[in-house]
Amino acid sequence: MNIHELIHDLREAKKTKIVMLVADGLGGLPLEPGGLTELETASTPNLDACARDGTVGLSVPVLPGITPGSGPGHLGLFGYDPLEYRIGRGILEALGIGFTVGAKDVAIRGNFCTLGADGKITDRRAGRPSNDKNKAAVERLRTIKIPGVELFVEPVKEHRFVLVIRGDGLGDRVNDTDPQAVGVAPLAAQGADEASKKTAAVVNQFIAEATKVLATEGAINGATLRGFATYPKIATFADVYGLKAAAIAVYPMYKGLARLVGMDILDPGQTLQGQVDTLARVWNDYDFFFLHYKYTDSTGEDGNFPEKVRMIEKLDEAVPGILKLKPDVFIVTGDHSTPSKMKSHSWHPVPTLILADNCRTDEVTHFNERACSRGGLGQFQAMHLMLLAMAHAGRLGKYGA
Amino acid sequence: MNIHELIHDLREAKKTKIVMLVADGLGGLPLEPGGLTELETASTPNLDACARDGTVGLSVPVLPGITPGSGPGHLGLFGYDPLEYRIGRGILEALGIGFTVGAKDVAIRGNFCTLGADGKITDRRAGRPSNDKNKAAVERLRTIKIPGVELFVEPVKEHRFVLVIRGDGLGDRVNDTDPQAVGVAPLAAQGADEASKKTAAVVNQFIAEATKVLATEGAINGATLRGFATYPKIATFADVYGLKAAAIAVYPMYKGLARLVGMDILDPGQTLQGQVDTLARVWNDYDFFFLHYKYTDSTGEDGNFPEKVRMIEKLDEAVPGILKLKPDVFIVTGDHSTPSKMKSHSWHPVPTLILADNCRTDEVTHFNERACSRGGLGQFQAMHLMLLAMAHAGRLGKYGA
Repeated sequence: MNIHELIHDLREAKKTKIVMLVADGLGGLPLEPGGLTELETASTPNLDACARDGTVGLSVPVLPGITPGSGPGHLGLFGYDPLEYRIGRGILEALGIGFTVGAKDVAIRGNFCTLGADGKITDRRAGRPSNDKNKAAVERLRTIKIPGVELFVEPVKEHRFVLVIRGDGLGDRVNDTDPQAVGVAPLAAQGADEASKKTAAVVNQFIAEATKVLATEGAINGATLRGFATYPKIATFADVYGLKAAAIAVYPMYKGLARLVGMDILDPGQTLQGQVDTLARVWNDYDFFFLHYKYTDSTGEDGNFPEKVRMIEKLDEAVPGILKLKPDVFIVTGDHSTPSKMKSHSWHPVPTLILADNCRTDEVTHFNERACSRGGLGQFQAMHLMLLAMAHAGRLGKYGA
Repeated sequence: MNIHELIHDLREAKKTKIVMLVADGLGGLPLEPGGLTELETASTPNLDACARDGTVGLSVPVLPGITPGSGPGHLGLFGYDPLEYRIGRGILEALGIGFTVGAKDVAIRGNFCTLGADGKITDRRAGRPSNDKNKAAVERLRTIKIPGVELFVEPVKEHRFVLVIRGDGLGDRVNDTDPQAVGVAPLAAQGADEASKKTAAVVNQFIAEATKVLATEGAINGATLRGFATYPKIATFADVYGLKAAAIAVYPMYKGLARLVGMDILDPGQTLQGQVDTLARVWNDYDFFFLHYKYTDSTGEDGNFPEKVRMIEKLDEAVPGILKLKPDVFIVTGDHSTPSKMKSHSWHPVPTLILADNCRTDEVTHFNERACSRGGLGQFQAMHLMLLAMAHAGRLGKYGA
């Protein structure tokens, strides 16, 4: 039996409220064997108190050893099997710039490139143009019209842009037109099925027009496309859990991921305090609150151990403001680890805590990697965290008699 | 590969004996955060010695966050995936009153109700009659005969009874006739397939006759039916494990669940000592012994923390009598948690110990929730416990060369 069907059968309407605070890339590593991780180094009195009164464990985002991107990392936390639900690269790129994709869209990553007089690529990144030059080139692409579909072209940065084709019956089984090499011409798009052939036809017209409108843009005189992706079919949070859910995130990517599962997207401004203020303001309007905190990941990606420590301490300072609202279930976790030592996402399981009246207190009194490995939740799959959230919120009835 | 097929391929005949002592609803919660659970409060020198010499862990009955009923809870312990093998409500109700269901049966929960002169329900529970009135009404229903099938009507209590229809080719995809409301007439039964249409036809005749024979029973002048369930198709313990298995349980429900998987049902009387005496008496006749102890659950359901502690201590006192028989594998576990604090089954994982010559001793020297969370078995799915039982009994050969 499918877990979502099981939840649908067992779920009960309650007034309880769940807060899931996701510290992106939360888990870390010691710089030296035997040393302390970022979380172990940080002073986190508020998270430690939650660990003491609650129960902790380590969340495995996808499978042991699998390093997730932001998409699979968050889908797991939201209770969607990240090996079953896949978000195409074009869609993720669109989410990342805050473009609202919909059910009729095919989203595609675009690269500006430089073509020689013979039509062959001489620079796959068009000399890495400035963002201003990128925007100017995007404006030219926006003049292209193709009958039967709507086109949206959005700048990303340097040589990158997003193309969204909106129309009926478009497929995404289309090859990348980027040949991933210089000295060869961009490839023609070909569709692997009827719906994708329709997309490919639009794309080939678009590229032909692009070459014309970009002719006078200097190094930016061509474009390649890749990562064709339709909007994923995902049951919403309301469908699966019966939860009215709000996302309180600063960065477009995470707002977009939350929108995919049907959460309302609130605008908390740019600060963690703004997020907590927003949480308080809408407290009575929702059952579930997803708070996303980016800086534990970005400092890890930068390889900046002390700054990641500082960002963890800043996160800790926000905890009392959340607890003041008395959530029935308070969860702190991450979508994956981002050890400063590795300057990248990693596969290491993620410290996770659940604080609720009916959680089974364990012996752990600190919130960090080592302590959580001895916690009452053990190691568990991230995609089961929402089951635990629902259970602790009293929102799951008994299975079988 | 299916786990049962794997076991079937790997299993080896041995003389070893396995005792599985199931303390129903064993796991608990502290009444206050940071306090002690029932098991942590109880004095359990014998179980603690087993934990010290054996290995312990926490069993997850179904999935994290899922609270199981007795059916799924026990199926998991017996090694049957509780999400795959489902026991219908009618069958469980029949097992609960000790009715021996078989392969040709459809079992159904019945409610006596009160009908107005217009045939509409005025009381869905017929005024909650005494058990004596229930029995009298059941006697009237037993006079009903329908050609081609055998009918069995059994009292449960108050307004509840069980109807079992025995015949060839009966299906259970029949709607509840209970409309779950007053002011409306009971629904006609309809079958969703050919076999179920046959059942529905019998049911509609039965209800028509019931209205006649109950006409003079006062408030009990109608009946509704729900939870239609055929006997589940389950391979027996002998088939799967090659084990000759005995159930030594006091309560009908657990005898019934054991009978479902083909165990012999022994009658130990009403006491734990009677169960241990029975175990000793039949020691040479079986390979596997399922002992069920109810009172850790019933005291938890009552919300009686001190009494649950006392029932755990009583259980502990029975352990030496079992160990005297020198089982090769001794397992203590529960089918789910029943924290007194919650007065209900819960999802929390269940303390479990395995004592055997070849178990890998861990650092744990006490048998309780916190200690087991640090044990050598970690957290594991209940449906894998029988694999561990078979392995420790030397009854599972090597997989692959």
